[in-house]
Amino acid sequence: RFQALVEQSAAVVMGIGDDCARLALPDGHELLTSTDLLISGRHFYPDADPCDIGYKALAVNLSDLAAMGAKPLGFTLGLALGQVRDSWLDGFSNGLLQAAQQYTCPLIGGDTTRAASAEDCTVSITVFGQSTPPHLPLTRNAAKLGDEVWVSGCPGLARLGLFNLALQRDSLTPLMSATAQDTFLTFREQLPEPLVAKAQRALLRPTPRIDLGYHLLGLANSAIDLSDGLAGDLGHILKATGLGAVLDARAIAKLWERQGVGASSWPDFCLELTMTGGDDYELCFTASPDRQGEVLITASHLGLELTCIGRICDEVGLSVMSGRQRKPWVQSSFDHFQKGPAQ
Amino acid sequence: RFQALVEQSAAVVMGIGDDCARLALPDGHELLTSTDLLISGRHFYPDADPCDIGYKALAVNLSDLAAMGAKPLGFTLGLALGQVRDSWLDGFSNGLLQAAQQYTCPLIGGDTTRAASAEDCTVSITVFGQSTPPHLPLTRNAAKLGDEVWVSGCPGLARLGLFNLALQRDSLTPLMSATAQDTFLTFREQLPEPLVAKAQRALLRPTPRIDLGYHLLGLANSAIDLSDGLAGDLGHILKATGLGAVLDARAIAKLWERQGVGASSWPDFCLELTMTGGDDYELCFTASPDRQGEVLITASHLGLELTCIGRICDEVGLSVMSGRQRKPWVQSSFDHFQKGPAQ
Repeated sequence: RFQALVEQSAAVVMGIGDDCARLALPDGHELLTSTDLLISGRHFYPDADPCDIGYKALAVNLSDLAAMGAKPLGFTLGLALGQVRDSWLDGFSNGLLQAAQQYTCPLIGGDTTRAASAEDCTVSITVFGQSTPPHLPLTRNAAKLGDEVWVSGCPGLARLGLFNLALQRDSLTPLMSATAQDTFLTFREQLPEPLVAKAQRALLRPTPRIDLGYHLLGLANSAIDLSDGLAGDLGHILKATGLGAVLDARAIAKLWERQGVGASSWPDFCLELTMTGGDDYELCFTASPDRQGEVLITASHLGLELTCIGRICDEVGLSVMSGRQRKPWVQSSFDHFQKGPAQ
Repeated sequence: RFQALVEQSAAVVMGIGDDCARLALPDGHELLTSTDLLISGRHFYPDADPCDIGYKALAVNLSDLAAMGAKPLGFTLGLALGQVRDSWLDGFSNGLLQAAQQYTCPLIGGDTTRAASAEDCTVSITVFGQSTPPHLPLTRNAAKLGDEVWVSGCPGLARLGLFNLALQRDSLTPLMSATAQDTFLTFREQLPEPLVAKAQRALLRPTPRIDLGYHLLGLANSAIDLSDGLAGDLGHILKATGLGAVLDARAIAKLWERQGVGASSWPDFCLELTMTGGDDYELCFTASPDRQGEVLITASHLGLELTCIGRICDEVGLSVMSGRQRKPWVQSSFDHFQKGPAQ
């Protein structure tokens, strides 16, 4: 609806439609900016550790800068609180400060106000970054036919973390069907505990891939951060280019095997976590196969897992190759991945 | 509390503490940015015209740019709604669009999300502007001893509009004492209807003084926008400089006489409206007496009322000259101006 509101003034290089909006600055630089709202009871449990809330609120905004290869400049904070508790504010500002220091992104202004009702807590952050000429920012719309599709880390871990958190709180029911709960519980039993902790951390303390985004300038053709799940976010790249992609189920299973999951016994569950689980803030990017060596050197240089999981093709839509079978990806193949608190 | 979070990174010229935060851009320009939250039931009546809400949400942010003499570049919108009604969204985005077009400030990005409860509506806007070298942005902290204190328009009108709106809704009680209500009702009776309409408009459709701010660059020494009432906002200038100010009650009464109020019969009530009534978004600025002629030419050029209402002095604090009597301004001289909806 607000598309109609976006005028193309001289200064606006690109408005709505990518991870960040782009404003032209006087000397060929660009200002990149992104806004995210986090709402208590929707994006985090009301009793979540305020330090985690603060950290994540900035991290998810920094992730939008990362997806465009931008250098963080600073952020503004809007905070509406129903009740003001000192201990909560201390924790929240400590978490914010950790992320701000880690990514050299200072708080430069803001507004705090009393929310209408006591339970309300709304966190609104706007982050600013700067492009680094001669490179243009990475965008969604420049993927090329034949590009390899890469992801950092193991997308889906954050969703596993959410399910585990819900299990601890005895509140899986709003998130999945009874059958799916049984599947998850059996799956959960065979997971190594360090992986469970890692998944929880992926959910509560996501790592914005600022360094990676920066290194992908001039190397990747397109990039996006994974906030809504691989299928949805890669879908944005495909929609922006009119191309399709075919993903390799085996490569995705390997992401999980590397985490210590016997993924071969749980291929569907792990695939579903990766494809539809959101909140990871890993990057998905596409690059020419000629650049594979450079991508792998970047991975080694940054100490990151970067994995090629598929390829851009000219057949529109997203499909998954499983053995020799190629099937169109159907978003609702499982019906139990619903949105819930902390998602 | 968040002051501790504000790091002085190389790019941050000035963080929290003025109308806008300032970020240094590569070529000597500066980026100016400001964030405001508007919350249903606190900053506007839940059933207010959504077109007015949209217009005002952007206007109050633009006013922060105006106070620093910045040129608008664009804004981002965060919108959390408890329930999504098309007619509300249409009105809201029309109001936003009107302000965006009028001040050439396009929407460049945003985030919309469902609020936790059905009645919630939180609007978070971050606006960006640009300084215009060779001028530095106007700030609060550069008022000089002997400066004249000026205001645009008639600060206090918006508060009169709020009282009138509350009267129409039969909800004056949360805003003022019973005695004060009697005073207001008698005062209200003698007001010309066009003035009542103008006051309502001042409240619901405030005019950010973008052009004025721009013209004050190199002319005024300091400026601030009037969002909290003259006493509070001028207080920020005084606090930032360690100076004081003495205002002329007669000059303030004249502001109201020019609106058609027989202010001489209501000097205290009108003074109180101006001093403590917020939400006007007029500018208050200080300039050397040598520049009085230029200020008046600017007023005439822009078709604005600019009035000298006092002077910066070295005696700390704010006082009001009434006849030959100089009295320190005591914020709580009336106890009936409390914060309420639409304030």
